[in-house]
Amino acid sequence: ARKYRIAVIPGDGIGKETTPEGLRVLDAAARRFGFELELTHYDWSCETYAQTGKMMPDDGLDRLKDSDSVFLGAVGWPGVPDHVSLWGLLIPIRRGFDQYVNLRPCKLLPGSRTPLADRRPEDIDFYVVRENTEGEYSSVGGRMFPGTDREFVSQQSILTRIGTDRVMKYAFELAMTRKRKKLTSATKSNGITFTMPYWDERFAEMGKRYPEVQTDQFHIDILCAHFVQHPDWFDVVVGSNLFGDILSDLGPAVAGSIGIAASANINPEKAFPSMFEPVHGSAPDIAGKWIANPIGQIWSGAMMLEHLGEKAAADAIVNTIESMLRDGGPRTRDMGGQAGTVDVGKALAEAI
Amino acid sequence: ARKYRIAVIPGDGIGKETTPEGLRVLDAAARRFGFELELTHYDWSCETYAQTGKMMPDDGLDRLKDSDSVFLGAVGWPGVPDHVSLWGLLIPIRRGFDQYVNLRPCKLLPGSRTPLADRRPEDIDFYVVRENTEGEYSSVGGRMFPGTDREFVSQQSILTRIGTDRVMKYAFELAMTRKRKKLTSATKSNGITFTMPYWDERFAEMGKRYPEVQTDQFHIDILCAHFVQHPDWFDVVVGSNLFGDILSDLGPAVAGSIGIAASANINPEKAFPSMFEPVHGSAPDIAGKWIANPIGQIWSGAMMLEHLGEKAAADAIVNTIESMLRDGGPRTRDMGGQAGTVDVGKALAEAI
Ligand SMILES: CC(C)[C@H](C(=O)O)[C@@H](O)C(=O)O
Ligand SMILES: CC(C)[C@H](C(=O)O)[C@@H](O)C(=O)O
Repeated sequence: ARKYRIAVIPGDGIGKETTPEGLRVLDAAARRFGFELELTHYDWSCETYAQTGKMMPDDGLDRLKDSDSVFLGAVGWPGVPDHVSLWGLLIPIRRGFDQYVNLRPCKLLPGSRTPLADRRPEDIDFYVVRENTEGEYSSVGGRMFPGTDREFVSQQSILTRIGTDRVMKYAFELAMTRKRKKLTSATKSNGITFTMPYWDERFAEMGKRYPEVQTDQFHIDILCAHFVQHPDWFDVVVGSNLFGDILSDLGPAVAGSIGIAASANINPEKAFPSMFEPVHGSAPDIAGKWIANPIGQIWSGAMMLEHLGEKAAADAIVNTIESMLRDGGPRTRDMGGQAGTVDVGKALAEAI
Repeated sequence: ARKYRIAVIPGDGIGKETTPEGLRVLDAAARRFGFELELTHYDWSCETYAQTGKMMPDDGLDRLKDSDSVFLGAVGWPGVPDHVSLWGLLIPIRRGFDQYVNLRPCKLLPGSRTPLADRRPEDIDFYVVRENTEGEYSSVGGRMFPGTDREFVSQQSILTRIGTDRVMKYAFELAMTRKRKKLTSATKSNGITFTMPYWDERFAEMGKRYPEVQTDQFHIDILCAHFVQHPDWFDVVVGSNLFGDILSDLGPAVAGSIGIAASANINPEKAFPSMFEPVHGSAPDIAGKWIANPIGQIWSGAMMLEHLGEKAAADAIVNTIESMLRDGGPRTRDMGGQAGTVDVGKALAEAI
């Protein structure tokens, strides 16, 4: 049987509650579609940080590197600053494993509560492809003249040709697999006049290789407006690290699915494991109550299976989520129901 | 009588059609509230660029500098690249006159078509305060190793203490004039780890001087999501040049007023003239048809009067716009009516 090694990091808060449900559904899919998942659990989290002073051991990446994928819950806890929790676990994995694509589906699921008037599932169904290793999240910067009137801080945005081209290529390839074959680029070359014109240049250049893909581009300000006013315009959207970050929260927000959105941090060449995580955080306010919605985690599991080559199993999970929501299956509170985390996970696993 | 010198730059496209209506309403307000406007017209535009090779004359800023305000239509025309039209006119005025605050009201006006379900005028009524001179729009950057695999571009974001503190101060002062006295800061200090933590630091520091103002902050990604999901949370929002740019398009978009939104580029010390312009562009697709909605221009005129100290006149214009929309006055096509640009301007001028 086909066999995949999965590193499981539940992390903090509701991550500990949603991850088991993700695994429950993955297990059901494995049995139905005839493959095996070999799981290794890691308790790396803000809790272990409190005990050991580290979010993960020094050889953390080494321990993960022979897995086929990393399945993550959520990272972060009140009292532990972001530069410890995120920069001690999430960001090192993204960068260390060169997961240069952050992929997020934006989909209006049946029964999800979009804040938009008159929008139906067929109107919102697109992907945001975010560059995940460079751009505005750079490590080049600093402060001068501290404490004086001359004080200033500076931080560079960096776009490399290699980094830009490879994420563009991924986005064009993804667009090729879609019915509409449409790709939109997020830019701001009218205001940010060194990096963003280069982004546009590489986008145009890569476009020549994909004549079948219909392209357009918008400045990020008006693009955000269009996400709200015309979400039906979009099929695949590609953006820099920051613009992709913004759009991949805004997209699920307009679709009413921000609490259940999934995300994949992908190394497309499979030189390193890719990582799959829900968009939501550790939600300290509801952690421990077992009422968190596990759909984001489960959906992330589906993305993981697709990446591993188990497309049929991935589709089965997404379809089951959609039909369960449409047919009034168990729902957690955020979707207007009364079910607990485990109820939803069990219902989905059984349906599969 | 109180007298103000106004430099009028209609610019391109529909700017030429909306500016006269803005002036018509300003004139009506001047007569009713007993002040005078002394107008000087400048034809600077992409048209004059075609003839002279310049968007404005070399001594353009000098000519404007003794005005009390600049009243601008729209700048830009197909065939003239942004780095010519914007960087040859709009941006030099913003920077040359140290208009370090870009202020944009986000308001759900009666009868405007918000894309959101179930939102009413009382739900959306806030200001975005954008830093308008530094930040991500910097002139420090470049490209190395062109044409090779090592090629990269780099651009610095710069936050100075002076530049950051003064826009924060403006935002806190504005919050103090509002009923809710609430100020939200847009950040991304979890990902952009040199500049944005500094932004947070200065925000916290300035907050100490305004204990009555209730503050909060969100990372820009989730803040954009909140604009869509909870626009009623916001009262005054302060952001860097880029984040403010994004939020001040997104805000009007959720309010359904992006076609009629107003904006002010302000030098609060009045050391230089401030500039008032609608958010919309020159709209080449409808230019020449006299169907453009002049409300953004007229609303910008109201912001100009407020800046000049004519608060009663400014309020009268905004109230007249609101009551005309509520009571089914003439509307242009974008608002579902049949009226032309001039009809709306005349109706508002008469009502005042
Ligand atoms: C035209 C462009 C440079 C400008 C900006 O981003 O400042 C515009 O989007 C605006 O908001 O006035
Ligand atoms: C936690 C933070 C650094 C992160 C990011 O901006 O990359 C988050 O917003 C995300 O999108 O995964």
